[in-house]
Amino acid sequence: MSRIAYVNGQYVPHSQAAVHIEDRGYQFSDGVYEVFAVNHGRLVGEQGHLDRLGHSLKELRIAWPMDRRAMMVVVHEVQRRNHVRDGLIYLQVTRGVAPRDHPFPEDAESALVVTARKTPPLDKAALTKGVEVITIPDIRWQRCDIKSIALLPNVLGKQQARDAGAFEAWQVDADGMITEGTSTNAWIVTQDGELITRDTSRAILNGITRLAVLEAATEAGLSFTERAFSADEAEAAREAFITSSTSHVKAVTRINGKSLGNGHVGELTSRLLDLYMDFVDTRGGPEKTDTWN
Amino acid sequence: MSRIAYVNGQYVPHSQAAVHIEDRGYQFSDGVYEVFAVNHGRLVGEQGHLDRLGHSLKELRIAWPMDRRAMMVVVHEVQRRNHVRDGLIYLQVTRGVAPRDHPFPEDAESALVVTARKTPPLDKAALTKGVEVITIPDIRWQRCDIKSIALLPNVLGKQQARDAGAFEAWQVDADGMITEGTSTNAWIVTQDGELITRDTSRAILNGITRLAVLEAATEAGLSFTERAFSADEAEAAREAFITSSTSHVKAVTRINGKSLGNGHVGELTSRLLDLYMDFVDTRGGPEKTDTWN
Repeated sequence: MSRIAYVNGQYVPHSQAAVHIEDRGYQFSDGVYEVFAVNHGRLVGEQGHLDRLGHSLKELRIAWPMDRRAMMVVVHEVQRRNHVRDGLIYLQVTRGVAPRDHPFPEDAESALVVTARKTPPLDKAALTKGVEVITIPDIRWQRCDIKSIALLPNVLGKQQARDAGAFEAWQVDADGMITEGTSTNAWIVTQDGELITRDTSRAILNGITRLAVLEAATEAGLSFTERAFSADEAEAAREAFITSSTSHVKAVTRINGKSLGNGHVGELTSRLLDLYMDFVDTRGGPEKTDTWN
Repeated sequence: MSRIAYVNGQYVPHSQAAVHIEDRGYQFSDGVYEVFAVNHGRLVGEQGHLDRLGHSLKELRIAWPMDRRAMMVVVHEVQRRNHVRDGLIYLQVTRGVAPRDHPFPEDAESALVVTARKTPPLDKAALTKGVEVITIPDIRWQRCDIKSIALLPNVLGKQQARDAGAFEAWQVDADGMITEGTSTNAWIVTQDGELITRDTSRAILNGITRLAVLEAATEAGLSFTERAFSADEAEAAREAFITSSTSHVKAVTRINGKSLGNGHVGELTSRLLDLYMDFVDTRGGPEKTDTWN
């Protein structure tokens, strides 16, 4: 059964899905995207993803290609046509096709591409095996709150991690503080048991999974701190994990070659994964999503 | 007569030129480009553009889609098919098509797109009319020596200039020093007659036109300094101009709303434009092109 993609008004076989070479996404990275997790047939954090998409589009002054409701019809149709019960929906909006020139074109129409793919269902065993992260300098631009497709530095950082035999790279700003992973948010649990993730600003992308975990933690009466933490603090942590729509809550057991705690998934990490799995099973996503600057 | 584009092995009508939605250029800005000026039928700085392309590809570990010689056959064929005697050739190389995932794919083949368009021939009157520039914070990533298609910050900066009624925006780094324009290199002439353009580093793209002007100036016995200069110095300058393959040597007569000198094109700017026009008329381009870090 072949995959189906939505491209500017048409549902087409994925293998033939194409855009014009002068789509500004291709020549200028002039676009934004969202990745929805699908869990047992349901999109996780639908509202949050749309709110964040709205933030990205607004900051770049790109028009919505259609209204939110129509867009979600497309998203659900792509999900349905690809029979995705567990998996991912990828959605990309660009400023559209126009003769190549840097300023915003006068009459381009926003382009919309939506794809889907299946993945194995959420699996606690796989997520708690523990991965390694390395730290690298954060060389990205200064608007990481916008979920843009200008991902080249993230690509280079992720590859640097892979070259080092690690799963992810945590990026360190000029002050020595970790911002986030190249495609995930970063979390640690200190030796004192303090759960920490970086506070939102233009330096990080506020993850929907990040928000869901914060909300699940709050409901369970667990405390946390949203603040910057250093690479040294991370290496000295008791536990660590990463969050994203594709990594969910994934245990980190080594940082820069050093084992954390006893080298196995931490107690709080394991608990938060349970809470997160319950959260996405029982509700659509985080409530509080209007937290973009 | 319809325009022709080259896309991955085929010459196709420009209007139908398309790439797959999972070309990494579209989803990750994982690619690089060059823009060749064509002057009276001849490409300007062919060697320099290829050397710089080599630098960009090497830094990103993207394979050449074909060897330099074959690539130039394609470039010249696109020029010929579009009857470009004066104009621009745009060339883009991406890491190719692969299922969406941040790290470098194992088996993608580099993609190559080449387009062409006609422009009016070099015109001294138009280039010396004088444009305005504004200064804005440089929010770009830290590898601006790579001519990547991750141009979103440049797009936003250029639009900011247009919103202000200016032609270009000069970007100012954290130290208050101008790096470059969003698609041009920045030059000033101080009240003492010192010709200055920023020295090359990872903070700027070393322009082929920049190199040509430096070479033409050297041959004419004109002195210059390659160093960082501040926004204040720029506003206090006697003359200013910008260089690029599309702007050539273009006079700047206003910075942040203030007129420079007498508000008309400066003497040295005018002379350098003459030297540049003579340079491109009489030879292929700058000799010294191996200056990428």
